[in-house]
Amino acid sequence: MRFSVTSQMSTDGVTEQSFTLGEITGILFTPQDATGPRPLILMGHGGGQHKRAPGIVAGAHRFAGEGGFAVAAIDAPSHGDRPKSEQFIQLASDMRARMAADEDATEPATAIHTLLAGQTVADWQAVLTAVQEFDQVGAGPVGYWGMSMGCRFGVPLLAAEPRIRAAVLGLLGARGLTDTAAQVTVPVRFLLQWDDKMVPRDQALALFDALASTDKTLHANPGGHGEIPAYETDDTLRFFTRHLG
Amino acid sequence: MRFSVTSQMSTDGVTEQSFTLGEITGILFTPQDATGPRPLILMGHGGGQHKRAPGIVAGAHRFAGEGGFAVAAIDAPSHGDRPKSEQFIQLASDMRARMAADEDATEPATAIHTLLAGQTVADWQAVLTAVQEFDQVGAGPVGYWGMSMGCRFGVPLLAAEPRIRAAVLGLLGARGLTDTAAQVTVPVRFLLQWDDKMVPRDQALALFDALASTDKTLHANPGGHGEIPAYETDDTLRFFTRHLG
Repeated sequence: MRFSVTSQMSTDGVTEQSFTLGEITGILFTPQDATGPRPLILMGHGGGQHKRAPGIVAGAHRFAGEGGFAVAAIDAPSHGDRPKSEQFIQLASDMRARMAADEDATEPATAIHTLLAGQTVADWQAVLTAVQEFDQVGAGPVGYWGMSMGCRFGVPLLAAEPRIRAAVLGLLGARGLTDTAAQVTVPVRFLLQWDDKMVPRDQALALFDALASTDKTLHANPGGHGEIPAYETDDTLRFFTRHLG
Repeated sequence: MRFSVTSQMSTDGVTEQSFTLGEITGILFTPQDATGPRPLILMGHGGGQHKRAPGIVAGAHRFAGEGGFAVAAIDAPSHGDRPKSEQFIQLASDMRARMAADEDATEPATAIHTLLAGQTVADWQAVLTAVQEFDQVGAGPVGYWGMSMGCRFGVPLLAAEPRIRAAVLGLLGARGLTDTAAQVTVPVRFLLQWDDKMVPRDQALALFDALASTDKTLHANPGGHGEIPAYETDDTLRFFTRHLG
């Protein structure tokens, strides 16, 4: 697959390089004027979001600007700048209709996750290899961060990819993932929102339980799906620094 | 009640003053050569332990030595250097016999907690008033730390005592405490051990749930009742610094 940097800009001490790798569209965030190898964090966005979602960009800027990490974010298949498949469009339409009618949207959401998981894992593995060619990244330790759909794809990625040494996951239940989670052995921080209406609490606890990692910590906070408190980002930065730094 | 300092020693930059307040036996830990007011942390030990239990002394030294806090630890009634009541002796003997026989010891443990809770809350309120008279403590912000039986007494203390502004609790279930927990509104960090054989997981989750605090975070780690990982102490120090510092 052909790798190209399509644009570059720097803001607040962080350089963002937009890239394509074959069909994959992504961004590499590094500290401005960085040279030489550094730990890399892969950030997977949530359902309906993309590589420039506010939570991704804010986190990437903190990890790169404060922590000195390299950070890669990519669009999941059928998300962001990537073409949408017919099957995805139908499932997403079904999901939106059910959510608008206040009905349970678990079935189409799960179908979307299943549809995209295999491709996303392969995409991340290719992106990891490609960005480690950069002088300011190199073949150092790698971490993964992903909430909700980003967690759904992170679990099989961690099971498949030995280069990733630590992960921050969360906002997802165990449904269909228990066996894969049992293959995850790296240190994990797992975030759960206590009043999450999209993820049943017992399902999220079951996913944390299913992870085989001996070093894993669950952090549960009050609030809904998108309301993770800001101090968890401070903690995530410390977690990655401890395990990758 | 008469307050007396009975001995004083300094180790590794921390001064320990043993004191009595009426029948209450305790220790005040402060940074060596400290002068002027500072935040105070009250540390409540677990069942069968005392004010010099290794976990209390280690935590107090970190809070005082690294964080600059004052720390007060006292013996619970019928614990440590305090005389044991007849009723306590009988219940403790029953509990030990059941534990030795691998039987459920919840009933005598709960009875001990109920027996001692009221006195312990009154003790802490008196000790708080007394130690704040020290020049190197003063009337600054106050926190509470207590696991297991220390959590059992901490919940009613927090409900009763407006001077305490933040607490680290855990290793306890909700049984008999739900209504009192609903009166706790200060920021809480709640520690749960995922494989705790002494506290059913759903009961511990229920106690976290019952706390009325809007700023509360549950941290769950693998391992048994006494196996809280060391990095939670780092986090506790940051939690108290954030809320009391």
